[in-house]
Amino acid sequence: MTSSAATGTSATFADRHIGPDADGLRRILDLLDQSDLDALESAAVPATIRTGRPLELPEPASEVQALAELRGLAARNRPMVQMIGLGYHDTITPGVIKRNVLENPAWYTAYTPYQPEISQGRLEALLNFQTAVADLTGLDIANASMLDEGTAAAEAMTLIKRTARAKSNRFVVDADTLPQTLAVVRTRAEPIGIEVVVADLSAGVEALPVGDFFGLLLSYPGASGAVRDHRELIEAAHQREAKVAVATDLLALTLLTPPGEIGADVAVGSAQRFGVPLGFGGPHAGFIAVRADIQRQLPGRLVGVSHDAHGTTAFRLALQTREQHIRREKATSNICTAQVLLAVMASMYAVYHGPDGLRRITERIRTDALVLAALLEQGGVTVEHALFFDTVRAIVPGRAREVVAAARDRGINLWADGEDAVQISVSESTTGAHLTAVVEAFGVAAGLSSGEAATASLPGWAARTSEYLTHPVFHAHRSETAMLRYLRRLSDMDLALDRSMIPLGSCTMKLNATTEMEAVTWPEFAGIHPFAPVEDAAGYLDLIEQLSAWLCEITGYAAVSLQPNAGSQGELAGLLAIRAYHRSRGEQDRTVCLIPASAHGTNAASAVMAGMKVVVVKTATTGDIDMADLRAKIDQHAAQLAAIMVTYPSTHGVYEDTITELAELVHAAGGQVYVDGANLNALVGVARPGVFGGDVSHLNLHKTFCIPHGGGGPGVGPVAVAAHLAPFLPNHPLAPAAGPDTGIGAIAAAPWGSASILPISWAYVRMMGAAGLRRATLTAVAAANYIARRLDEHYPVLYTGAGGFVAHECILDLRPITSATGVTVDDVAKRLADYGFHAPTMSFPVAGTLMVEPTESEDLAEIDRFCDAMIAIKAEIDRVGAGDWPATDNPLRGAPHTAASLVEDWPHPYSRAEAVFPAGVSAAHKYFPPVGRIDGAFGDRNLVCSCPAPEAYA
Amino acid sequence: MTSSAATGTSATFADRHIGPDADGLRRILDLLDQSDLDALESAAVPATIRTGRPLELPEPASEVQALAELRGLAARNRPMVQMIGLGYHDTITPGVIKRNVLENPAWYTAYTPYQPEISQGRLEALLNFQTAVADLTGLDIANASMLDEGTAAAEAMTLIKRTARAKSNRFVVDADTLPQTLAVVRTRAEPIGIEVVVADLSAGVEALPVGDFFGLLLSYPGASGAVRDHRELIEAAHQREAKVAVATDLLALTLLTPPGEIGADVAVGSAQRFGVPLGFGGPHAGFIAVRADIQRQLPGRLVGVSHDAHGTTAFRLALQTREQHIRREKATSNICTAQVLLAVMASMYAVYHGPDGLRRITERIRTDALVLAALLEQGGVTVEHALFFDTVRAIVPGRAREVVAAARDRGINLWADGEDAVQISVSESTTGAHLTAVVEAFGVAAGLSSGEAATASLPGWAARTSEYLTHPVFHAHRSETAMLRYLRRLSDMDLALDRSMIPLGSCTMKLNATTEMEAVTWPEFAGIHPFAPVEDAAGYLDLIEQLSAWLCEITGYAAVSLQPNAGSQGELAGLLAIRAYHRSRGEQDRTVCLIPASAHGTNAASAVMAGMKVVVVKTATTGDIDMADLRAKIDQHAAQLAAIMVTYPSTHGVYEDTITELAELVHAAGGQVYVDGANLNALVGVARPGVFGGDVSHLNLHKTFCIPHGGGGPGVGPVAVAAHLAPFLPNHPLAPAAGPDTGIGAIAAAPWGSASILPISWAYVRMMGAAGLRRATLTAVAAANYIARRLDEHYPVLYTGAGGFVAHECILDLRPITSATGVTVDDVAKRLADYGFHAPTMSFPVAGTLMVEPTESEDLAEIDRFCDAMIAIKAEIDRVGAGDWPATDNPLRGAPHTAASLVEDWPHPYSRAEAVFPAGVSAAHKYFPPVGRIDGAFGDRNLVCSCPAPEAYA
Repeated sequence: MTSSAATGTSATFADRHIGPDADGLRRILDLLDQSDLDALESAAVPATIRTGRPLELPEPASEVQALAELRGLAARNRPMVQMIGLGYHDTITPGVIKRNVLENPAWYTAYTPYQPEISQGRLEALLNFQTAVADLTGLDIANASMLDEGTAAAEAMTLIKRTARAKSNRFVVDADTLPQTLAVVRTRAEPIGIEVVVADLSAGVEALPVGDFFGLLLSYPGASGAVRDHRELIEAAHQREAKVAVATDLLALTLLTPPGEIGADVAVGSAQRFGVPLGFGGPHAGFIAVRADIQRQLPGRLVGVSHDAHGTTAFRLALQTREQHIRREKATSNICTAQVLLAVMASMYAVYHGPDGLRRITERIRTDALVLAALLEQGGVTVEHALFFDTVRAIVPGRAREVVAAARDRGINLWADGEDAVQISVSESTTGAHLTAVVEAFGVAAGLSSGEAATASLPGWAARTSEYLTHPVFHAHRSETAMLRYLRRLSDMDLALDRSMIPLGSCTMKLNATTEMEAVTWPEFAGIHPFAPVEDAAGYLDLIEQLSAWLCEITGYAAVSLQPNAGSQGELAGLLAIRAYHRSRGEQDRTVCLIPASAHGTNAASAVMAGMKVVVVKTATTGDIDMADLRAKIDQHAAQLAAIMVTYPSTHGVYEDTITELAELVHAAGGQVYVDGANLNALVGVARPGVFGGDVSHLNLHKTFCIPHGGGGPGVGPVAVAAHLAPFLPNHPLAPAAGPDTGIGAIAAAPWGSASILPISWAYVRMMGAAGLRRATLTAVAAANYIARRLDEHYPVLYTGAGGFVAHECILDLRPITSATGVTVDDVAKRLADYGFHAPTMSFPVAGTLMVEPTESEDLAEIDRFCDAMIAIKAEIDRVGAGDWPATDNPLRGAPHTAASLVEDWPHPYSRAEAVFPAGVSAAHKYFPPVGRIDGAFGDRNLVCSCPAPEAYA
Repeated sequence: MTSSAATGTSATFADRHIGPDADGLRRILDLLDQSDLDALESAAVPATIRTGRPLELPEPASEVQALAELRGLAARNRPMVQMIGLGYHDTITPGVIKRNVLENPAWYTAYTPYQPEISQGRLEALLNFQTAVADLTGLDIANASMLDEGTAAAEAMTLIKRTARAKSNRFVVDADTLPQTLAVVRTRAEPIGIEVVVADLSAGVEALPVGDFFGLLLSYPGASGAVRDHRELIEAAHQREAKVAVATDLLALTLLTPPGEIGADVAVGSAQRFGVPLGFGGPHAGFIAVRADIQRQLPGRLVGVSHDAHGTTAFRLALQTREQHIRREKATSNICTAQVLLAVMASMYAVYHGPDGLRRITERIRTDALVLAALLEQGGVTVEHALFFDTVRAIVPGRAREVVAAARDRGINLWADGEDAVQISVSESTTGAHLTAVVEAFGVAAGLSSGEAATASLPGWAARTSEYLTHPVFHAHRSETAMLRYLRRLSDMDLALDRSMIPLGSCTMKLNATTEMEAVTWPEFAGIHPFAPVEDAAGYLDLIEQLSAWLCEITGYAAVSLQPNAGSQGELAGLLAIRAYHRSRGEQDRTVCLIPASAHGTNAASAVMAGMKVVVVKTATTGDIDMADLRAKIDQHAAQLAAIMVTYPSTHGVYEDTITELAELVHAAGGQVYVDGANLNALVGVARPGVFGGDVSHLNLHKTFCIPHGGGGPGVGPVAVAAHLAPFLPNHPLAPAAGPDTGIGAIAAAPWGSASILPISWAYVRMMGAAGLRRATLTAVAAANYIARRLDEHYPVLYTGAGGFVAHECILDLRPITSATGVTVDDVAKRLADYGFHAPTMSFPVAGTLMVEPTESEDLAEIDRFCDAMIAIKAEIDRVGAGDWPATDNPLRGAPHTAASLVEDWPHPYSRAEAVFPAGVSAAHKYFPPVGRIDGAFGDRNLVCSCPAPEAYA
């Protein structure tokens, strides 16, 4: 029997996800002179790429139904007590942080803080993170997070390669390193010609390999739990002009002499156990910290202190000129996304506990580990290491699996290292009952006394004496009330998607629906260790399998890996798959990667990291790829042609109709076609890159598939490939099910990358269904064209495709305006903040332009509000042009305007009202940026990347 | 084995709940010249009332442990598919509303909007609620919610009693009324001499009882599901000069001719099915709507439209002079708390769905019910009613229990009415599978066709033709993105506990910890029908039993009922228990209730509702009860003495040392001692009212026990009694386990009141433990005394107890200031908003004063920030006094200052900076009230209580 409920007379999820209602869409299409979305599709999308059939996806589920299915999947996961360790630990997420950060749209829907004046809250949180990491590691400067410990170690390797004086291609890694870290280092080393030498350095300096090496990676504590005195090794490496990275544990460093004080140049690790749930491997915030002498080589995002136009202390991303979107193939890293949301959580964990609280947690963990070791030893079990922090390595010849099984019977996961060793890792969550159960699992009689072990003091060399987290922020928020208010205060300073449209071209800031987000924080998804037996993760694996199949259907590829935990990592994985494919066919010489001039900067950086040589293909005056130049470049490099990387629709926001021809040309020359999926939001349900010419694409689940941007991460960048590339997808040393044996190795530390946020994309596809996804795509295209039409007479739209249509975004050309009036894209961007909007993408892919992408989730009222603001700003520009206001003092140049500025004498030729309440801005709902325009250059010249003293705010 | 984890070296929950850390407490106690909290206790609390022993409560659980125990309790609940109906329905809470209202501190930690300038967001939400209720019921005006449908019906009865021209004591209730509604009406009628006459009016006008009656309560639809044409009955009642209330269902009214259009004077009901979870009975928002001619008699809170000092449209509570805290024993109702948080949710459900969406949901429900009825009839089952909306009443002679059991086997709860009838109520959540299962449970073969039943149209008299929800707000937020932003925008207008201290004397705005809040939205607590078989609620009942036992231990009473869903209802229940006790002993004449002059207004109103006569006991000049007058009043009324109601510590914030003597005097005269638990936050763990003299107390779980205020509800007001009163606690007609057979009847519609929020208080007690609770109490007392000491030289503290100590709050006397300078408490209250604070309690219990209560949750930094603001304001007052600023134009009189006012010409003798950034206010974190000072009197003269047209904002 069918209830009428099932006939869908009520609002569907697609109706809620897609902004314009029927009336709004009608008005949008009217302006475009299109009868319906089908007509728009025919007019705007080249026939050659359009799919002939609907996507084969399950019928869309309602929100209730999707949640019920997710609960069903969750019920098939088994969140055991996790004492596996190996870089992932049970942790207690303070409720106030979970609810008010991880479950709060004000934090999770924010964008990367490129517009610092409207991002001071999360910049402060990230500065706290950097300060905590720098303090705890004892190094000078830390960045705003890395994707995970494995990629942080790989970045440390290349950072050291660039900065060490030793000329060598050898990188030495201690054998006592986390297996996944070693795996990622290997994956990253090989294409760029670095030889990884693994050496058992437990014997000390003598065990260092003979011959040259440029760098050394040590672990502290080691993967086995051992805490060793690395000072002699570090000194020896330094004497050989190599630099040293130390992989470490922030919690341990509250007790142990920090890496910076034993001579390390770099420290890396994961901040996961600072309150970020296990989540089957991620996302978590990795970290990297360095000595001051190499700070300008730090990869990734770095928050720094500067001041604004009024001299007020203000934060912004520092040293942005290093970034790959400027330096392209000269970039030192392809890292783009960081793990901001998780770094914020970890920083808040440090803020909430403070140094004393962290130390108490750490001491408790160490004491429990000591008690456990003493009991095991009394029971006749050999404990291998004399000095350890949280991990006890027990030697049980031939019995490891039996002990692990016995612990599992008691609800606890331990780690068997081969047949003879079991590792037990104590965490913040460990209780006396857990310790008892572990001891029982070893067959040791209960009731033994742990004696005095629990009070054993650390040897002098290991005992930390230096202070950390001395800044007041780590002392001021000890009650939940104080913490709650601090979180609110910070988030109130920022403009996120929960307050207004973020019309960022290429970044696809669409709705992150609550129903999509809910499962992320369920214990059944949050509490799974990435190296737990796969049967504990049956629900996860089902979800991964379903999502993978849907992504293949959507893209037209044969296989997908969800391991890459950022788009940049997906790119690298895809290029490595191409490389491995060519090599498998004996074509080692195919190393040239063609990249259009308009490409994302990460493309070039990734190609270099994949050992390829970048050859740039010119852009024609139309903005399209210059096909003549393409042919010439293919001819020139035919034998060496590895691939072309092309974004589709192009980064100019246009459906180029040459894409199929391009693919044929490249294929004919033996090359592979990499279709960058950054703009997949203009294709889903309409065209499939795996069918119209691509061999590989990475997707951005955090753009197209609703994973929120989190203020600059987490991202998820799955790589999807045609069948012939499937054997070359990533895999993982500890999880055979995560990828093919023939794969390229681990691209991320966790087997399935940022698994805990995959339910978001799963729910999106599950609830939208084929028709909903296609409707979303075409609505996004319609909205972009609506904006292009409304704004074109004010700001010329730079590029369009056939029929004068753009795809899902449009580039507004401000260069003539700037020439005529001096008003820059920066001025317009900052002025938009006065109107309550986040700026569009600035000067990408064309300097002097703004790229606008509304997505499908904005309703017509908001789209019109944005267009009205842009038109009003143009009228302001015209007044500057007309001489009403000088070029040096007008509402644009003065933007953004703070509340504080209103109470001072008003020296401007425009009024206070014109400054802060321009047309359309409601006084009752006004958002005031907390600071005025920030002087970025000052901050770069005077680099400060940790919390400023409170006096600085005076 | 004990892990060191269990030894509590880490921060405990009490450390997070209690604001001052060790250093802060030290500084507080230093100012008070006390060595520690024990010393303070000895100095401040009379020895005669102090408990000699620690509370016997379980050892405090950690947050992790408490959540684990709650999950264990949750697992023992069985959230079945609920098709019981009877006023409670499965509903779908939109995720965006759940996460951003019910789980968002900005909404749930807000206080009742007595300070309207800083409460515009929730006032707008409540105005939406009032508009939706008025529109849907077809009546002129609705209030901002009622506690539940039962109490709304009881209030309708007394409202009609006050306004009907018929002189009678008889109130006629149709037999087809919800049993719990009838029960509450009876409980409320009897003490005030109203005779409830139940009549089966299905036969029409002839069935009306002969003789006089003043009012009539009809149901539409009826409890049996029947939809009857009530017009003739209503007309007949009107002809007999009676007024008519109709209990109805808002969803049904999108299809049915509304009560206002069939002649009803009053409509009542529950908005639960507008997206508020079942929660085992509550909290939900009840509603009441009336014709304009009796609007000024509406009980409870009413939001109205007015304007501010700048002429801007603004909202505030209307007709506050009706309120019981002014009118006391002349009050028409004791309703104080409403159900604001739930009313906000319900209003947002209407905003999100809009009229079309609501109508689609309703039509689907009706169609499903018609399909179900048709199938049952085809299968030979008699369906009793020809016309129904969502509820099908099937006649199955002798088989009712069997059918219900068969449905339970299929996961569905139906309602057996006796042995022969089964009622099936269709809801928004009903699916085809549910209908199939229901049909099977009746033993009807599947596969029958429902034919054309599903399209049956309503008879003309029943089909609604009028429009509803035409205001733009019900049409503008159809996408989740738009809804999310609307919720954010509203909450940003308000100042709640998540931004700053709310130092409200008597209202105890303490931390509502996340861990306490979490379980409320778990499906296992949210999805239980209050009339489900008790085995479905095993976890709930365990939790209720434990919480009840703990509350008894804390208060020193023998028994407690958690049924009262507001403090006012707890008061009434307690007084009714006293009344019943006296009557059980044949002392019917004991009807005098002594109430001190300083008492809460609800006390007097409740006493009148309990059929008592209020006699006021004077206050001595010390602020204490005038013991001589007390003796005199006891002598005067000895034979009639029923009780004394006394708040302890007193509403003056003082531990009066006469309390034990007072109790002895009253007891000696045969009276009972009612200790109002409003100030229990100054007693928990320190003194037990059930031991030091009380016979009964109500508690405020939403004050002392951490249930958030929700912007003005939900509240929970359990009544605790000594053993001799236990037989007279509330009970419930449908739930024998909810109270004693000998009880006073139902005080609320649901057996265990607002059950779904009890996990909050459970978690609080579970995590604090005996020592934590006592520490909280004494910290609150310390903080209040700290404020008193710091502010006394600026604003004299009106009353203190022995040793010059106040209890947990202090009264600041502004009367001399007002005389000298013209600056009023209102001015100071509004000026505090400029400083970013919510005002203290104004003019209660003494006109011209402010009563400050910091609670234990504020840390010293925030307490000092408040004191500094108050001292800075005093300096401003001094400048007014000194003539620097005129009394008519100064920062106090101009407060609060909006952002909009800054851009206008500035006519004031003080500067813009002095207006909005006074000392200590950070420009970066400034909260701007969205409107200036509101003209309340204008709004009362021109009463508008539904959404103003958009033009009004222009």
